Amino acid sequence: MRALVFDGDLNLIERPPPVAGPGEARIRVRRAGICATDLEIISGYMGYEGVLGHEFVGEVVSADDTSLVGTRVVGEINAACGVCDWCGRGLGRHCPARTVLGILGRAGCFAEEICLPTQNLHRVPDALTDDAAVFTEPLAAAFEIVEQGALQGCDEALVLGDGRLGLLCAMVIASTGVKTTVVGKHPRKLAIAERAGIDAMLTADLGDRRYRVVVEATGSPSGLAHALELLKPRGTLVLKSTYAGRPEVDMARVVIDELTILGSRCGPFDRALAAMRSGDIDPSALIDADYPFSRALDAIEHAGRPGTLKVTMTMPE
Amino acid sequence: MRALVFDGDLNLIERPPPVAGPGEARIRVRRAGICATDLEIISGYMGYEGVLGHEFVGEVVSADDTSLVGTRVVGEINAACGVCDWCGRGLGRHCPARTVLGILGRAGCFAEEICLPTQNLHRVPDALTDDAAVFTEPLAAAFEIVEQGALQGCDEALVLGDGRLGLLCAMVIASTGVKTTVVGKHPRKLAIAERAGIDAMLTADLGDRRYRVVVEATGSPSGLAHALELLKPRGTLVLKSTYAGRPEVDMARVVIDELTILGSRCGPFDRALAAMRSGDIDPSALIDADYPFSRALDAIEHAGRPGTLKVTMTMPE
Repeated sequence: MRALVFDGDLNLIERPPPVAGPGEARIRVRRAGICATDLEIISGYMGYEGVLGHEFVGEVVSADDTSLVGTRVVGEINAACGVCDWCGRGLGRHCPARTVLGILGRAGCFAEEICLPTQNLHRVPDALTDDAAVFTEPLAAAFEIVEQGALQGCDEALVLGDGRLGLLCAMVIASTGVKTTVVGKHPRKLAIAERAGIDAMLTADLGDRRYRVVVEATGSPSGLAHALELLKPRGTLVLKSTYAGRPEVDMARVVIDELTILGSRCGPFDRALAAMRSGDIDPSALIDADYPFSRALDAIEHAGRPGTLKVTMTMPE
Repeated sequence: MRALVFDGDLNLIERPPPVAGPGEARIRVRRAGICATDLEIISGYMGYEGVLGHEFVGEVVSADDTSLVGTRVVGEINAACGVCDWCGRGLGRHCPARTVLGILGRAGCFAEEICLPTQNLHRVPDALTDDAAVFTEPLAAAFEIVEQGALQGCDEALVLGDGRLGLLCAMVIASTGVKTTVVGKHPRKLAIAERAGIDAMLTADLGDRRYRVVVEATGSPSGLAHALELLKPRGTLVLKSTYAGRPEVDMARVVIDELTILGSRCGPFDRALAAMRSGDIDPSALIDADYPFSRALDAIEHAGRPGTLKVTMTMPE
């Protein structure tokens, strides 16, 4: 099969398909999405080498549970050991022995086939297009904000950053009934939020309002500093961005204003699928371009251009 | 009256006593404690100039409520406006118009007399010595950890730092029934924790255990970095230390492990007084030295020596 492999260089190469381990399903990838994490890995982040990619929708080729064969699925990216304390508490995404699709010890989905534990798979409702389903993983990550309880007692939230992650977070928060404002620097992206019924504003127009909850989704250390300034005392900064290096943080302010900084990563696939199925959230407007997998290198280059939202790749039938 | 004034230089000088505003009581200071914040102000932190000091026990000289006159009191240090949203929610310590005793816009308690709003005062139970009562403010700050709910669902906590703040935090957490370990570099200070029934350990002996809750009370940016490493995924770092400048923080770890960083400042005086009255907590063992106020400059110098716990000053009768 063909796969997009990073080993210091990035190449679309022919290699044997992965072999399913015990309890794992083989999945033919239909569509894959490119994430900032993929671009960071290509820049050397996390030291991962291998097949890239962790956002996908696919079709089960083989599984112990034969009723799965032929169904359309998405898959949680953390493959846990299943026996440790974390796994016992249903938090396999923090299992210290986990592998992570296309990120840590497990070949990713920028390939014609992948393997994942059957228990990681979620069936995609027939009503959902691949255009929507390919967003399940990042949308689930946005739902993690809700899952962690960060919005409890909050009637108004600000999302800093109008990129992919910021827009998905804003859609999720707005879907819970919390008044949501997204701020950024790109009128084109802010317009997507407005079409989804979300207040949008240029960063320059923010003024001196303060918020109870601010979601940092700019990916930039300056966004982190700004987010802290935008919080009311006792407010919560939800940190979705990861930064290369160690940003300087105004920790005295965190203490004096008794702020909470809450790191937030992967989230619940079931909530993401349910929100798309019900029509509450339609992330497909975030797709800027779709490339055939044969043009994977062009797709990666496009995803890395400033201002780009989501770029996807379609695998050959 | 005499007062210890910082105006770039530090001097014990004669000056007129403060004049009570509406709703304020005049208080004769009996005993005052020196805090790290006082030493930081002397180093230029927060730009405060005026009479230093915010930890005290005193006696009411005059108040609208005449039943208070002659009673022994301690006082909350944030003097709030009383009318804003924060004050309405009982959170005057975050009132944006507040003054803070000896820290912001209000003459402090390293003086023979001070003024504070009557509503800031708490009567000291007769059974409490001044040795204990002078710790009410920092002990209340340690109780803020409980008040903020940081220990919910936690059966084991680590306190990093065996200074004044670390020992008080450890005493408070242990008093709630949570298994508590305090780590530091000073056998003499760790012995105080052990005598209070708290597990104590040299930092060098920590090993690779991880904790659900870590309280950072070292006052050092390296302590902050260490505290993050000591947390289990989904753990909470309670930040009691303030640092001059902006430390570099491993925010990627905060996201990947979904950590919570919780800033924690001033706390509930009533809980601190109740815990000392019941005998659950006796902080008086933390007093390394008491000076007559006439030797205030010596007391400050002593408080600043490495390894010193609490230094107090006794005012003239």
